[in-house]
Amino acid sequence: MHSIKKYLLKPDFYDGWEVTLQGWVSSNRGNKKIRFVSLNDGSTVKNIQIVFKSETFDLELVDSLRTGAALVVKGTLHSTPEAKQPIELQASEIVSYKNVDQDYPIQNQEMKMDVLRELPHMRHRTSLIKAIMLIRSTLAQEVHKYFAARYFYYMNSPIITSNDGEGAGETFNVSDGSKDGFFGKGNKATLGVTGQLHGESYAIGMNKIYTFAPTFRAENSNTKRHLAEFWMIEPEVAFYDLHDAIKLAHNLIKVVVRNVLHKNKFELEYIEETLQNGIIERLEKFVESSLKIVDYKEVLEILDKVKDRFEDKNIHFGLDLGSEHERYLTDEYFKAPVAVINFPKDFKAFYMYQNEDGKTVAAFDLLVPGVGEMVGGSQRESDYDKLLKRVQELGIDEKDLQWYLDLRRFGHAASAGFGIGFERLVMYVTGIENIRDVIPYPRTAGNIRM
Amino acid sequence: MHSIKKYLLKPDFYDGWEVTLQGWVSSNRGNKKIRFVSLNDGSTVKNIQIVFKSETFDLELVDSLRTGAALVVKGTLHSTPEAKQPIELQASEIVSYKNVDQDYPIQNQEMKMDVLRELPHMRHRTSLIKAIMLIRSTLAQEVHKYFAARYFYYMNSPIITSNDGEGAGETFNVSDGSKDGFFGKGNKATLGVTGQLHGESYAIGMNKIYTFAPTFRAENSNTKRHLAEFWMIEPEVAFYDLHDAIKLAHNLIKVVVRNVLHKNKFELEYIEETLQNGIIERLEKFVESSLKIVDYKEVLEILDKVKDRFEDKNIHFGLDLGSEHERYLTDEYFKAPVAVINFPKDFKAFYMYQNEDGKTVAAFDLLVPGVGEMVGGSQRESDYDKLLKRVQELGIDEKDLQWYLDLRRFGHAASAGFGIGFERLVMYVTGIENIRDVIPYPRTAGNIRM
Repeated sequence: MHSIKKYLLKPDFYDGWEVTLQGWVSSNRGNKKIRFVSLNDGSTVKNIQIVFKSETFDLELVDSLRTGAALVVKGTLHSTPEAKQPIELQASEIVSYKNVDQDYPIQNQEMKMDVLRELPHMRHRTSLIKAIMLIRSTLAQEVHKYFAARYFYYMNSPIITSNDGEGAGETFNVSDGSKDGFFGKGNKATLGVTGQLHGESYAIGMNKIYTFAPTFRAENSNTKRHLAEFWMIEPEVAFYDLHDAIKLAHNLIKVVVRNVLHKNKFELEYIEETLQNGIIERLEKFVESSLKIVDYKEVLEILDKVKDRFEDKNIHFGLDLGSEHERYLTDEYFKAPVAVINFPKDFKAFYMYQNEDGKTVAAFDLLVPGVGEMVGGSQRESDYDKLLKRVQELGIDEKDLQWYLDLRRFGHAASAGFGIGFERLVMYVTGIENIRDVIPYPRTAGNIRM
Repeated sequence: MHSIKKYLLKPDFYDGWEVTLQGWVSSNRGNKKIRFVSLNDGSTVKNIQIVFKSETFDLELVDSLRTGAALVVKGTLHSTPEAKQPIELQASEIVSYKNVDQDYPIQNQEMKMDVLRELPHMRHRTSLIKAIMLIRSTLAQEVHKYFAARYFYYMNSPIITSNDGEGAGETFNVSDGSKDGFFGKGNKATLGVTGQLHGESYAIGMNKIYTFAPTFRAENSNTKRHLAEFWMIEPEVAFYDLHDAIKLAHNLIKVVVRNVLHKNKFELEYIEETLQNGIIERLEKFVESSLKIVDYKEVLEILDKVKDRFEDKNIHFGLDLGSEHERYLTDEYFKAPVAVINFPKDFKAFYMYQNEDGKTVAAFDLLVPGVGEMVGGSQRESDYDKLLKRVQELGIDEKDLQWYLDLRRFGHAASAGFGIGFERLVMYVTGIENIRDVIPYPRTAGNIRM
């Protein structure tokens, strides 16, 4: 059975075809002689109109089908180039249907996002959430396609781990309730905050790898940009340096955005129409953009010249860029995506490549117009002694990391990679501002609905 | 930079090309005039031979490169159709290298699998584990490709959940150590044992969905077939019945196996040569197979006729098939994959469609020759009252499942789906018998290495 999307994309081609459609009623209007039922089958945010005439149907039955009802219907497609809808189905037979109870909570009129958050099992049946979620799925599939086409190894780093990655704390503990713990006495077991460290072990040997998996942070911050459970994309490539990683990040995002523009045209159009957020233009600009690469120290000079405009006017070496600074760089100064490189080592992770100046590391943040930081990455420190020293300086338990340190003794010529928070990417591509609205069942502090 | 695999696949085409290769030394032999270094770059299990001559190189340096050393080398490709290796590189320049410390634990000779399990961060640098893991990655990417090509929605069910899915218990608890719990007082938080229930909510509205994500079971069983953390593929399709789901399962496995036969030819050949397990013939047969569908009651009759051969000779309605019974069906009686359908409801999950006989449910197990059960699935009960009654009979807390029950009141015409344990699939496709050897970092009772 074809999806409704196929018919909508090529109305002329399918004109006159006899087909069966299945989906859910999204609206139902008309009179005693004719009824128009909009049907949606989840293949796109768009509906197809089905025409029921009183000659063929008991219109009382058709009339009784409420929004949300499941319906399988036969008929003939008619392309309608002059109408708002490019194609409709002249119904000849209702194959089967199942109505909804009267208290179906999804209404035809626009519903508030915070009301919908209480209904994570239902809200994808509204057009806006459906459009967002369809884009989410395409993005994920395109990410896999991008890497598969370039012979990247899909790495499944462990989720339950005894390492806490960046040493940031804020991890969830895992237990089966037994005294010694499922994984044995004295063994920590936490939910991974990153797949990177284990991913690095596979980059040495597999060369090009990526992870794409859930990660977890027990961060008690109730913002629009944080989840306790979110998906991360983390490529890691042996023999890559900082600039290779930046190029990969920029190209990856460009390619998947370009493909989403094509594949989710209906969904992006719907979002733009509904939210008036200029999302399509933003994405088209990004796809055409070239990337600026600018050193952190140069950024300080640029910002210092206009420091009066910022809340945080104290522009000095050691400053972690705030979103006001990032926005100025992307939206006003460069008017383009910007990779800021070579940050002070003090606010970056222990594993980053230590530059010769002794003060900075070969890290990058990729900032994009309208959003700010989208990607963070770095070249990794390859030198065992330098890495060990940094681990010790930061007071990280080196026993836990011995296996990771050892990678440097066994054929670690170079390696670089980055992480993209997948939900942040979905937010960027849809223009949706609350991260809870771009993942089916959001998990945040105090909330584990269903 | 091309991968070594490309050159190995088309040796004639690349004859005479000047190229740079990068990878890791897998062997190093020769004399004072000439050295032969095998290099592997992770694109395939096969190595490429690099020839270093004393006219151009300090062979003492080349000699010093140990197995595992990273190497970037320039040279000219020569196709060698008469030799065992179809192509080799005549080296002209070592661009860079990084040797390994002497205690590099991966040796040239064959290593025991249980020894390698102690080295999850290194073992993929042996040929056998590399071959297995490359096949794993292809399988995962092909699964995504299969569903994307058929417009399935990639659903990310939550990992942390307050539902325990099948009511089987044996779940891991998640906490941040705070008194009331991260997710709020009185809220259970466990790691999901299945993505199915949440997946079903999206099938209603999205029509065709699949999950592909880690799932968790705190099962204290130390077998060759169980992990505490494993990946599951769970499609769910609205309007599908039992037979539609069976067809989808069979076709999915056939298509991905066929593509792996093609894409991982070198890896399958290596496994077959090393383990002599006839894996390629098994897979080729499977791809050509047609599926037998047989009713559970018919199975009882078939088994009853040869009951004396089984350990469990008590063939009666209510019997849960043992692996000896399954093997007889696939390997001897049908000599084909078999879907057994309509099992007694007593040993199947509460959500399965209740057949009219009042005793059986519309469930299926897909059994494959040489392995046994690979897929389990069912049509789902669409009737609210019947489902509620079953929940109550089984003593499941209906409060937790109200949202799931409600799906039946809101446009749930029909739905069917199944689950494939991804590691079981990798075991099937590689012929590897211990599940710990088909996932990078296995998690089992008492083991959380790295």
